[in-house]
Amino acid sequence: MLLYIYLIAITAEAMSGALAAGRRNMDMFGVGFIAFITALGGGTVRDMLLGNYPVTWTQHPMYIHLTISAGLLTMLVARYMHRLHSIFLVLDAMGLIAFTIIGCNVALNLGYTTTVVIMAGMTTGIFGGILRDILCNRTPMVLRKELYASVSLAVAILYLTLRHFEVNEDINMIASFSFGLAIRLAAIRWHWSLPVFSYAPGRWND
Amino acid sequence: MLLYIYLIAITAEAMSGALAAGRRNMDMFGVGFIAFITALGGGTVRDMLLGNYPVTWTQHPMYIHLTISAGLLTMLVARYMHRLHSIFLVLDAMGLIAFTIIGCNVALNLGYTTTVVIMAGMTTGIFGGILRDILCNRTPMVLRKELYASVSLAVAILYLTLRHFEVNEDINMIASFSFGLAIRLAAIRWHWSLPVFSYAPGRWND
Amino acid sequence: MLLYIYLIAITAEAMSGALAAGRRNMDMFGVGFIAFITALGGGTVRDMLLGNYPVTWTQHPMYIHLTISAGLLTMLVARYMHRLHSIFLVLDAMGLIAFTIIGCNVALNLGYTTTVVIMAGMTTGIFGGILRDILCNRTPMVLRKELYASVSLAVAILYLTLRHFEVNEDINMIASFSFGLAIRLAAIRWHWSLPVFSYAPGRWND
Repeated sequence: MLLYIYLIAITAEAMSGALAAGRRNMDMFGVGFIAFITALGGGTVRDMLLGNYPVTWTQHPMYIHLTISAGLLTMLVARYMHRLHSIFLVLDAMGLIAFTIIGCNVALNLGYTTTVVIMAGMTTGIFGGILRDILCNRTPMVLRKELYASVSLAVAILYLTLRHFEVNEDINMIASFSFGLAIRLAAIRWHWSLPVFSYAPGRWND
Repeated sequence: MLLYIYLIAITAEAMSGALAAGRRNMDMFGVGFIAFITALGGGTVRDMLLGNYPVTWTQHPMYIHLTISAGLLTMLVARYMHRLHSIFLVLDAMGLIAFTIIGCNVALNLGYTTTVVIMAGMTTGIFGGILRDILCNRTPMVLRKELYASVSLAVAILYLTLRHFEVNEDINMIASFSFGLAIRLAAIRWHWSLPVFSYAPGRWND
Repeated sequence: MLLYIYLIAITAEAMSGALAAGRRNMDMFGVGFIAFITALGGGTVRDMLLGNYPVTWTQHPMYIHLTISAGLLTMLVARYMHRLHSIFLVLDAMGLIAFTIIGCNVALNLGYTTTVVIMAGMTTGIFGGILRDILCNRTPMVLRKELYASVSLAVAILYLTLRHFEVNEDINMIASFSFGLAIRLAAIRWHWSLPVFSYAPGRWND
């Protein structure tokens, strides 16, 4: 089940990466490359941080083909994609939650401590988007927008708490997905966001 | 033979990195640093992705000294370098091909699957330039320009195909270099490029 | 002793990261994230380059909590921080030196060669700031400003030289800190900097 959501999620993330590449007028190669990195970059950074070799996608070439194909396909269908706006937001939110739970489990299996498990979940959830934005030369949106990384954090905490109390894994999944989707979509709907820190450049430390 | 081409290639890449640093008015340290990363960053990312420790250049301090020296030397000779424009394009193309073949071999020796072997070759070929552009705060050119990454892809496929049919390694090298150089130089000469994907920012997913 | 300096240093670096995030109007999450990466990113990159798993901070959750808290606290006290300008410059310089020495020791313990040991020290010293600047979408300052990376280089060389001659470790520390602080603060006071390489973009290799 989580695998199917994962496959849908990396496809959706790949398409969001392709659109970002299109905004920078990249060529076909750039589109495929950014699609791949947006979809699989978060898990890659997690694996490299945790020393979890071999890196997941190197053992599943299908993920590589899927994300690059989704990216290239986006070039053809981009003009119609605004009609699918709402569906995309839901898929993206489901991806964020799936990535977070998968990332937590990878770190749990390696025996890391709770704080690191949470960070592994969040890294999987948000780092693909951060790499996409770095490669497209813009300040990562995940650090500036509506609740997004915070949803990943909240889901990780809920998932680990229920796990700690030995709640059945399926029920835990359903709870985590319902909760995560609810707060993410509410955040989009009502523009919930975290307090912003604006600091005007001064002379020092500049 | 491949080693000599490799040494010439990292020198040429280091010099291209130094020029990029000069465009950003970096100091001597920045120039050496960008030169090093441009020349050896692709192989570093490949080794970190594949879990190929120790990272190659840590076992060959000579590569470090060579690339940093080449970068610093570039500060002195930059004004004369436009005269060597054509030579540089050839050296850069040879470097791209050499990096690609070396990267493929590293992944082959570690037993990775074909798709990953190709990606290891391309990572070695193009990631130094990507890191250079990120550090110089510009959108990576390799994702937007004339056939470049595609040459790396084509060379990787040709090399692995000939290898699959057990063609003699020397002949394979000669074929891969001839083919790669030919399409890269033709791409520069006649401005061959991949289709570009231009996507105007809309409201959604922005 | 070095541990205490290290804790003060990562706190100071986290605060500098938070201010940089504030200049980009990031939200609370972004501030904590950039603070963490600025403080612990250099050591992380070093560990990943050297294959030194598990990465240090994954074994010390306290470092994670400390740096993120320092970042968030900075949001509250930022307006008063310009008064502490001088103290900060000293803390930042001490951090640079502590990071450098710690980085050298990690590589020494792993048996790397001298050139790599020096690069490990410098990576620990400066890469947190480089990641901060990449994430804030600006050209890394460490590559353009007053002696900073060079201080890290000089300290690494002094420390390793004294170590080579089997100078007592405590005396070596005192000498390295005194020397490093002296040249860093002198560089700030009298605007010492390395020669800058300015290269006007031409047609070729662009």
